[in-house]
Amino acid sequence: MEMKYCSNCGQPLTHCTPPGDDRARYCCKACGAVHYQNPVMVVGCIPEKDDRILLCRRAIEPCRGKWTLPAGYLENAETVAQGAVRETLEEAHARVEIIAPYAMYNICYVNQIYLMFRTRLVDNHFRPGAESLEVKLFGQNEIPWQDLAFPVMRQTLLQYFKDRLSGRFPFYIGDIVSKSPRRPTTPEKIQPC
Amino acid sequence: MEMKYCSNCGQPLTHCTPPGDDRARYCCKACGAVHYQNPVMVVGCIPEKDDRILLCRRAIEPCRGKWTLPAGYLENAETVAQGAVRETLEEAHARVEIIAPYAMYNICYVNQIYLMFRTRLVDNHFRPGAESLEVKLFGQNEIPWQDLAFPVMRQTLLQYFKDRLSGRFPFYIGDIVSKSPRRPTTPEKIQPC
Repeated sequence: MEMKYCSNCGQPLTHCTPPGDDRARYCCKACGAVHYQNPVMVVGCIPEKDDRILLCRRAIEPCRGKWTLPAGYLENAETVAQGAVRETLEEAHARVEIIAPYAMYNICYVNQIYLMFRTRLVDNHFRPGAESLEVKLFGQNEIPWQDLAFPVMRQTLLQYFKDRLSGRFPFYIGDIVSKSPRRPTTPEKIQPC
Repeated sequence: MEMKYCSNCGQPLTHCTPPGDDRARYCCKACGAVHYQNPVMVVGCIPEKDDRILLCRRAIEPCRGKWTLPAGYLENAETVAQGAVRETLEEAHARVEIIAPYAMYNICYVNQIYLMFRTRLVDNHFRPGAESLEVKLFGQNEIPWQDLAFPVMRQTLLQYFKDRLSGRFPFYIGDIVSKSPRRPTTPEKIQPC
């Protein structure tokens, strides 16, 4: 989010490059505060049940009506695994156990870092949370590839089914590149659907 | 950092729990903005050269004079690997190639998530950057365990030398617990030295 006023003293902000720094920050000439902006972590799950994967159909924008793996912003004071489990409970009322960290994705054009875990669904008692219209288990051949919410979910699932052939799931880091190459200098806070 | 004023309109902030949310946020009653606060990622390297590891002696607080692996805050618009390589260049003028992501640490009491990479030093042309007093290669038996800057660096190095015995370095997630258990509700922006 663009900053216009200092969150410490309320005065208008300027851009400056602090001494010893090499890039412009939001600076307050009134109180001297420097406001750094950094990428945000999104944590999520691939919830497994036998050969199937749990997906949620989004009830909110962006990408309302599209399918996604449960995921959301990591909160202060929680671990990455706690955040992933919490998001799955919130979006699908589904209880999962962590199997292992699986994949990280850099999404530089929205300043987001995704971390996805392989997880085991504890039982079949899932139902849509407030942010979901529908929650459902999908076999590999049933994945709604044309109706996935975000490129990062497509990449995660493609990688997952590829690895499942060998039964080995080494930790993976990849990049998600913008679908809007003509607007690379205009970061969007949401990924294209 | 505590927020007192809205960065969008400059008016004083209050605490509120937005509709559909389950925790208090910084809210602006004047313009309606909600200001979320999330953990920050710190990215760093274990720079390897033959059997030795590159450490930096810090020239800045916190922990001035103590030794650390090169690491720092991930910046917007860079990948986690780019950030780790950049920090190593800045702190030690050392060029490294990524071998693999190695370890992630939750440091909940300061709202930081560390991601450390195993890397290969490209050459021996390293020297202290602006934030370092000294930069040096250490064999396992030479590591200054009593003079390491942060608990997360101690944990990373302990795990690394343990894994090196087997030659296998599976991706690892761990927790760093506060050294200040009597002040768990007072998050500090710096880790204890």
